[in-house]
Amino acid sequence: MNIGIDMMGGDFAPQEAVKGVQLYLSESVAPANLFLIGDEARINQLLREHSIVSRQVTVIHASQNIDMHEHPTKALKEKQQSSIAIGFHLLAAGKTDAFISAGNTGAMLVGALFSIKAFEGILRPTIASVIPKEDGGTGLLLDVGLNSDCKPENLNQFAILGSLYAQHILDIENPRVALLNIGEEEGKGNILAQAAYPLLKANESIHFVGNIEGRDVFMDKADVMVCEGFTGNVILKLSESIYEITQRKQIQHEYFDRFNFEIYGGTPVLGISKPVMIGHGISHGLAFCNMIKLSHKMIDIDLMGKMKASFLG
Amino acid sequence: MNIGIDMMGGDFAPQEAVKGVQLYLSESVAPANLFLIGDEARINQLLREHSIVSRQVTVIHASQNIDMHEHPTKALKEKQQSSIAIGFHLLAAGKTDAFISAGNTGAMLVGALFSIKAFEGILRPTIASVIPKEDGGTGLLLDVGLNSDCKPENLNQFAILGSLYAQHILDIENPRVALLNIGEEEGKGNILAQAAYPLLKANESIHFVGNIEGRDVFMDKADVMVCEGFTGNVILKLSESIYEITQRKQIQHEYFDRFNFEIYGGTPVLGISKPVMIGHGISHGLAFCNMIKLSHKMIDIDLMGKMKASFLG
Repeated sequence: MNIGIDMMGGDFAPQEAVKGVQLYLSESVAPANLFLIGDEARINQLLREHSIVSRQVTVIHASQNIDMHEHPTKALKEKQQSSIAIGFHLLAAGKTDAFISAGNTGAMLVGALFSIKAFEGILRPTIASVIPKEDGGTGLLLDVGLNSDCKPENLNQFAILGSLYAQHILDIENPRVALLNIGEEEGKGNILAQAAYPLLKANESIHFVGNIEGRDVFMDKADVMVCEGFTGNVILKLSESIYEITQRKQIQHEYFDRFNFEIYGGTPVLGISKPVMIGHGISHGLAFCNMIKLSHKMIDIDLMGKMKASFLG
Repeated sequence: MNIGIDMMGGDFAPQEAVKGVQLYLSESVAPANLFLIGDEARINQLLREHSIVSRQVTVIHASQNIDMHEHPTKALKEKQQSSIAIGFHLLAAGKTDAFISAGNTGAMLVGALFSIKAFEGILRPTIASVIPKEDGGTGLLLDVGLNSDCKPENLNQFAILGSLYAQHILDIENPRVALLNIGEEEGKGNILAQAAYPLLKANESIHFVGNIEGRDVFMDKADVMVCEGFTGNVILKLSESIYEITQRKQIQHEYFDRFNFEIYGGTPVLGISKPVMIGHGISHGLAFCNMIKLSHKMIDIDLMGKMKASFLG
């Protein structure tokens, strides 16, 4: 198993990425082979400083870097020697089985969509986020920003992808799927939600439990919550800001600690044939370690294969 | 000045409505005339129990009541003797200058839209909610659920209505207006946001500051935040649930205390010619008192007249 990691992405690269690698190697019984992509000299120096000597680790040099504020499509095209471009090249060529980066989110999305193919039958890949539930559980919200305008059929596909992720990665048996809406009864909502409801209701490959409202997002009413990427992105970023506010105001509580999205690793791109994990810009070692673990698990159980099979019917 | 109050709406009616009336009368130097609409015998009994003897108070009997779960249009049509129907009848006839209820939200919206006219030039009235900012200030979010599908021009009008509300009711000079979006730069977002941005930018009657993201909703980046009613409603209900979670988990902090939406009174309907205030079902005396105060202020400064004038250009 080979996992590619962009060492140059994120606010604290490459130091924190190296810490993540160290953490992963120390915690794993049978670690994957890690391909560390970035400035070879700096990475090797950091590996020495952290006394990381492992047969599992290979450094791949990348002479360029895509900054956080560069235009995604343009940067990916022009910077063929960037760590993100090389990462996707290795993934597409089959030299790695997963790719992780905390760098330019747009470039990661463009790379995922154009270097790695969507499954047959998938209209649009999606990105998902874990949501901390009040009772200690976790839910999955999708789409969280890849698809800001959606058709009803998109939401129906997100529901299937989210169900499989919840089942196999979050270990939730028969996950309850809900449509995020602004009313509880069938027939409520905007045009999209009204049209998506009957599709979800008729979908036999999911356990649809109806509508949930904004007040239910953190409650134990559903495991998988589907919406278009505009609302999902606003919810995700608002939830992250709540964590930051509690930190700044020194409001200590284990519930709000779970709003630290770093503990969940990154955002997986679903609907494509290989695991691609997008980390937050502020990712520290823990986040990198968790992204590697998550990718490891996704490859191990062949999640992408399971998703693909579900769309072949 | 005459304010109509539905005494039968909300989970704790009519007791909490009576407490609100008592609180308002005790705190006001020159109180408005209050028309208490509902079960005459019960209201009079409660007025006696609370020793409310005031020339400002008139009880108007309503023999029917619209429950929280009744179909709005059907109930309003069939229950002409309900407190909400009578309330709108008095308002439309000019016998009252404002109407307040914590009852069936749908019926209140239907009543506001069909009994009270929208200003000339208004495409769609809207509902707004106050948002507690991290720094202690307050912002305004609209639409929060009346218009789940919007056209760009709707958002542009919400921006004007919200600006006037922020200026005259929240006392914010030259309020900063932002478009809620999923990216900071112009050109980002879904089709609606992309099309609304240039309209807002060109709108000379507002102080447009660009896009904000979900993470900025509770920050001091903008005073008036506009979006369609789907996302706005999800944000509002999610914010309310955060308050409820902090209550249940006994997380005490003055910041989260400000997520108790009762302190802001109700949700005003904007774009119509008379103040209509919709309270939460769980409204207690404080919420009723604040809704009466808010209506009083809106009438006092002729907010609706100011809004109307801004659309006559």
